[in-house]
Order: sequence, then C-alpha cells, then structure tokens
Amino acid sequence: MTASSDALQRPRVKMKPKSNARAIRHGFPWVYANELVTDRRTRKLAPGTLAVLEDEAQHPLGLVSVNPESKIIARMLDRDPEAVIDQAWFAVRLTRALEMRERLYGAPFYRLVHAESDGLPGVVIDRFGAVCAVQPNAAWAELHLDALTAALAEVTGTEVILKNASGRTRSLEGLDDVNQTLLGETPAAPVPVQMNGATYMADLTGGQKTGLFFDQRENHAFAARLTGPGAKVLDVFSHVGGFGLAMLAGGAGHATCVDGSAAALELAAQGAEASGFKDAFTARQGDAFDVLAALGEEGANFDAVICDPPAFAPSKQALEAGLRAYERIAKLAAPLVKPGGYLGLCSCSHAADLSRFRNASARGIGKAGRRSSLIHTGYAGPDHPQLPQLAESGYLKAVFFRLD
Amino acid sequence: MTASSDALQRPRVKMKPKSNARAIRHGFPWVYANELVTDRRTRKLAPGTLAVLEDEAQHPLGLVSVNPESKIIARMLDRDPEAVIDQAWFAVRLTRALEMRERLYGAPFYRLVHAESDGLPGVVIDRFGAVCAVQPNAAWAELHLDALTAALAEVTGTEVILKNASGRTRSLEGLDDVNQTLLGETPAAPVPVQMNGATYMADLTGGQKTGLFFDQRENHAFAARLTGPGAKVLDVFSHVGGFGLAMLAGGAGHATCVDGSAAALELAAQGAEASGFKDAFTARQGDAFDVLAALGEEGANFDAVICDPPAFAPSKQALEAGLRAYERIAKLAAPLVKPGGYLGLCSCSHAADLSRFRNASARGIGKAGRRSSLIHTGYAGPDHPQLPQLAESGYLKAVFFRLD
Repeated sequence: MTASSDALQRPRVKMKPKSNARAIRHGFPWVYANELVTDRRTRKLAPGTLAVLEDEAQHPLGLVSVNPESKIIARMLDRDPEAVIDQAWFAVRLTRALEMRERLYGAPFYRLVHAESDGLPGVVIDRFGAVCAVQPNAAWAELHLDALTAALAEVTGTEVILKNASGRTRSLEGLDDVNQTLLGETPAAPVPVQMNGATYMADLTGGQKTGLFFDQRENHAFAARLTGPGAKVLDVFSHVGGFGLAMLAGGAGHATCVDGSAAALELAAQGAEASGFKDAFTARQGDAFDVLAALGEEGANFDAVICDPPAFAPSKQALEAGLRAYERIAKLAAPLVKPGGYLGLCSCSHAADLSRFRNASARGIGKAGRRSSLIHTGYAGPDHPQLPQLAESGYLKAVFFRLD
Repeated sequence: MTASSDALQRPRVKMKPKSNARAIRHGFPWVYANELVTDRRTRKLAPGTLAVLEDEAQHPLGLVSVNPESKIIARMLDRDPEAVIDQAWFAVRLTRALEMRERLYGAPFYRLVHAESDGLPGVVIDRFGAVCAVQPNAAWAELHLDALTAALAEVTGTEVILKNASGRTRSLEGLDDVNQTLLGETPAAPVPVQMNGATYMADLTGGQKTGLFFDQRENHAFAARLTGPGAKVLDVFSHVGGFGLAMLAGGAGHATCVDGSAAALELAAQGAEASGFKDAFTARQGDAFDVLAALGEEGANFDAVICDPPAFAPSKQALEAGLRAYERIAKLAAPLVKPGGYLGLCSCSHAADLSRFRNASARGIGKAGRRSSLIHTGYAGPDHPQLPQLAESGYLKAVFFRLD
C-alpha cells in the first residue's frame, strides 16, 4: 500500500454538534474527548491512529492523531486531511523550527522542537551540538519515529539521535519508558553545552540522567547582568549549575551551587572547570531548605541569590501547599542577600500563575523583614514557543527583586 | 530654624481605625484619602507638606508628604519620622539607584529614578549622558527641588539638569507645567543616546519636545535578535526609531519607520545617520492605521513588523474600544509579515492587562488568516522597577509572535 492510498483510507472521526470546530479552524490544536463522537469504531482505534477530523456537517477539518484513552482525544497534525506523514513532512516542520533557532542563537544548543507550537504535537527535541534528544510523548510520533529520525538527521546534520522516553505523558499514550539510541552512538561522557558564555556539562546517557534544561537560558542571562567583579552569588537548586555558571561568566567572583543531587553537582563542577572558573566555584550538597537555613545561621551573605526549585505546585490540588513552599524559600533566601543585592526566584509550576507566585515570593521577603522592588519578570525562552490559545498556561516564570 | 528642629515640629496625620497600617509597615507606599483622619487641620495642609504618619494608636509609621486634594493623600518618604529631607537624604537614594543602573548598563543612558520603587515618590529622572531630565510629579519634590538638584549633580556628575513639567499628575498636585533649566544650559541640539548598538537622537528642548523612552530597551533588544542580514523590517508608531534602529544595529538590511510626527521621524533619520545606517532607513509619515492599510494594498511584506502604539486603553472606560484598536492593528499588520516572519505588538495601556492584550492581538492575527506562535513576552526594563505591591499594574507589555 502506498502512503497516499493509505491517506485515502483513513478512518474519519467527527466532532459533536455544538462543539468548538471554529476554534480548531482558528488553530486550536486539541479535540477534547467530550467534543468528539466516540462511537464503537472510534473507541477501538489504537493510540496514535491517523484519522480525518470532520465537523458536525462532515466537512473535513484536517488530519489528526487519535488516542481514545486520552482526555485530549485528537491532536491536529495537518490542516490538509490527505497529508502524508513521512520524512518530507517532518523535514518541512523541522526546517521551519531550525530557522528560528539559528536566527536566535549563535551555537547549536537549544530546544529545537517544542511540541504543538512547532507543528509536532507531543514531540520535544533538544539539541546539544551534534546530539539531538527526541521525546516522542505522543503515540503518533512513536509510530512515525523512523521518518522523524531520518528527517532530523537530514535537516540538522546531527550525528547522534537519542530517544528519551522519560516523559510522564507517555504512559497515558500507552508507550513504554525505554530509552533508545536512534542514530549513531550514545555519548559515553557528558556533552559540553555552550550557553551565555559558560560551558555546561549535560549527561545524556541512560545511567545517571540529569540532562540540561534550555528553558531558563534568558533568565540565566538576566541574572548574569546583575553580577560584577568580586560578587559572591548563591545558586540554590542549581542542578548542573544553570544560574551559577552563567553568573560566573557574567563576571561574578564566586558562585556557590546547592543541590540535593551529588551527580548534578559533579556536572556543575565539571562545567565550572570547563568554563575556566574552577577556583571560583563551590558545591554544597543537601536539602535546599536545610542549606538555606544553615547559611542563615552561619551569617553568610551574597550579592545575588537565585532559587530555581522543582515544581512545588504541580497541580491545582497542590497549589496552596506549593505557594507556602515558595513563600518559605523566599523567607529563607532573603536574609542571605546583602543590602542592595538581588534575589531571583523561579517557579515551574503550571498551577501557580505569575501573580500568585510573585505575591508568595514578596510575602516571604517581607516576612524576612526586607523591603524589595521587582526589577524583572522572565519566562521560558523563545525556543519554547507557545500557541496563543494555550499561552495562559506558561509554566515557567522568574521574578527578580532588588532588596533594600 | 534648623532642619532638625523643623522635623520635630511637623504636623501629624493619623490613619483611621481599621485602615491598613499593616500594609504601610510592610512597604505599601500610599495612604488613600479614605484611610486618613481628615480633620480641619489636615485638610488645610498645603500640597507637599511633610508630616508624621501615625497609626490609630498614634504610633508613628514614618515621614509622609501630604496632599489633601489627592486620592493618594499621603506618600511615604521615610520610615524614620524624623528624617530630614535634604541634599544628603536625596544623595543616599540617588546613589542606590545609580548603583543598579551602572551595574546593568554599559553607558549612562537609562531611567535613573522610577518614583516610589526608587524611594522617591512621584519623582522620575531620566539620564541622557551628561544631561538629566527630572520630572517632579509630586508637590513635595517640587518643594525640595534645590536639594534634589544638588544631590543629583553630586552623585552623577551630570552637567545639565532639566526640569520636565509635562507630567499629567502635576496639576492634581497643584503644580504648573513650566519647564526649567535647573543646572547648566539646556542643550540646543538633540542629544545622542547609545542603546542596543544604535545611536538615538533625543530632543530634550522645550520647543518640539519628543524626548526618548527608555522603557522599551529590552524589547528593542529582543526584536534585534529576530533580524538577520538582508532582513526588511517595519517599525510602526516608531517615534524616534526605537525598534527600527535597534533592528538595524542587530543586522537588519532595511528599516521603514512609520509615525504621525514629522519631528519624530526627522530625529529617527538623524539617528539612522548617526548610527551609520542612513541608506538602510526609510521614513513614512502618516496615520499608522492608514499606512498599514496602504502597505497591505501595495503588497508590501517584511521579515519583521513591530507596532508600538500609544495607549489605546488609558482607562477602564476605554478598555473595550482600546482592545478593538489593538486587534485592528494586529489584523492590519499580520498580512505584511512574510511566512515564517515575526510580529511584535506592544501596549502601554494600564487598563489592558497582559492576558486581554495578548488575546486581542492573537484574535487580530487570526482574523487576518494567519496562524501564530507566541515566542516572547516582555515588559519595561529593570531601570523601571516596581514595588511588588503595585506590580499587578505594570503598564508596558510586548508580545512577539512568529507567523506561519
């Protein structure tokens, strides 16, 4: 069967009367389960099946992938219902995504594909120089992984392509969590990544996977502007040294990185060495709350303190407890900031919107007896585009305060 | 009478029972008229009178300036009720404000003082190299302008200090609108301003005052990253060329600046020449809506289009009409963007919050038949700090889209 005759024999799925076909026509990428006619035939479709989506009048809206078990029952792949999902199809999207990243960044280290916003629903691709890590977090992408891999090699010229199967949504799509080498050989050693003038070490191997997050790059860059010669900075929840190394590259005299993971701190130390800042770097392993409290008791202080914790409010249910945790971080961190110094606080919680997170942070600073002004609000960088229809849910926010 | 005996004889004003003295203690800078006991003595205070603010139990909260005719009846100047407002007092605040700007910027072009957030309620100071322009938009500041001017010269070493009396709130404070030269001589020619690699020309004279806005600098810088060699860009509501010149400095091949003001466009042209981009610059005078429509009819297209209109929604009453105007701008601008190009839309309307403004923009783009992803959201730069308690009201936002 050729690809195009395959396209003609696709199943058809239909939106219910009064469901929002207009939103789909205007670019909304998802059909929710309660919007689709889920007859026996539709319910039997295997996750990732390609189908033609129709409105209630049976006019085709486009090509979707269907997952009858997901709340997002269909994801729009192409407005052309007869589109063929092959290497050429992927290459068009990857070329478009690459064009923007090459314009924005001087070196090939970025999120190359950010799912729906880059036209590849559920697919995330991070690029680390000659290595790409693909997260096919939707069943349709897993089914077409060979074509995606071939297109990725063709468009970017990368020599190594890894499949990262750790995405939490994969199980909802009926997918396993087994990593795989799709092209070339998985690098045995951490991969050096150039960002903001520093060299970070990203461990992409299956063993002690810590990886690297590109989303904070713009906020790292802002923090780096706040430091000057001789400045002492503290990077709490540092992971592989995101803020700390950027601030050293920005001119800081010394950075202390705090994290619970010895593996992450070892990578941070390697990054500091690779960046030429070995003597200006200290790692401190431990629970961040404990270390912040201990530093307070020691009377330590810093020209700038940045806290980039994991999501304290990952869900609506966890919101109140999460906000209290953000407030506590701010309250513990504020006393460590010298008069006239800077405090940067980050949240990657979907459930805590900017206003709530900022207020919790300001409350914590106030409870520490410090006055503050807000000098900057940052989000994930432009290699993490969002569909305007989903922009309200931007997960990452960073607020930077100057303390009195 | 010495300054300190003056401080001891200050009038006292008292907050009403159940008013929010706690917020004041935590750094809220304003007392609203309905929170203060306004006896006959208080009502008779001249605008700008210094007074000791007390809570309902007559405990002093700090030193305030009082304006019985304003909705903001008292503004906190100092937590010390006996503070003396003299040159030394101003110098402490100016030094602190300067320290941050010198850290952030490589050259002396910035907003040096952003009112409450820099500890000087109602006072705005912009620095253009050796020239500072002071806006004393509150009566207390006008009364202490000599001390402020002396401190400003002392701390910054600037040779020229101008008083800009165009602030709209001055009349509420009983102040005139007469500009004045406070130190040195008002420059006869436009002052060159270095930002983002371009040279802007700021006309600070009384005659055809167009000045220059520092608040968009970070958004100019982001726009500049979107351009590449040969790129054609369009800067609508360009004023003195804010986005256009930054994008030329960022590598764009050609910029067209559109504005209603011939004087602003002449300064933009002078800036283009001073920046070395004379041949890459075109000015087009006219109503922005008309010019956008005309460019559409001409079939013109650009790699990037930026629209930075005046406040379309300056008040809550004007919100709906303002949002329609933002939508219309987006709808007129989107067709001018090449496939894969960029559209940046700005709002300086207090009343239109980010969410409403972004939605209006996305709606306009959609009505033009284009799909988009949101790649960046920016605000006023860090030389425009905000008190966290007032951060909700951030007026400036810029949203950058990539169009399909």
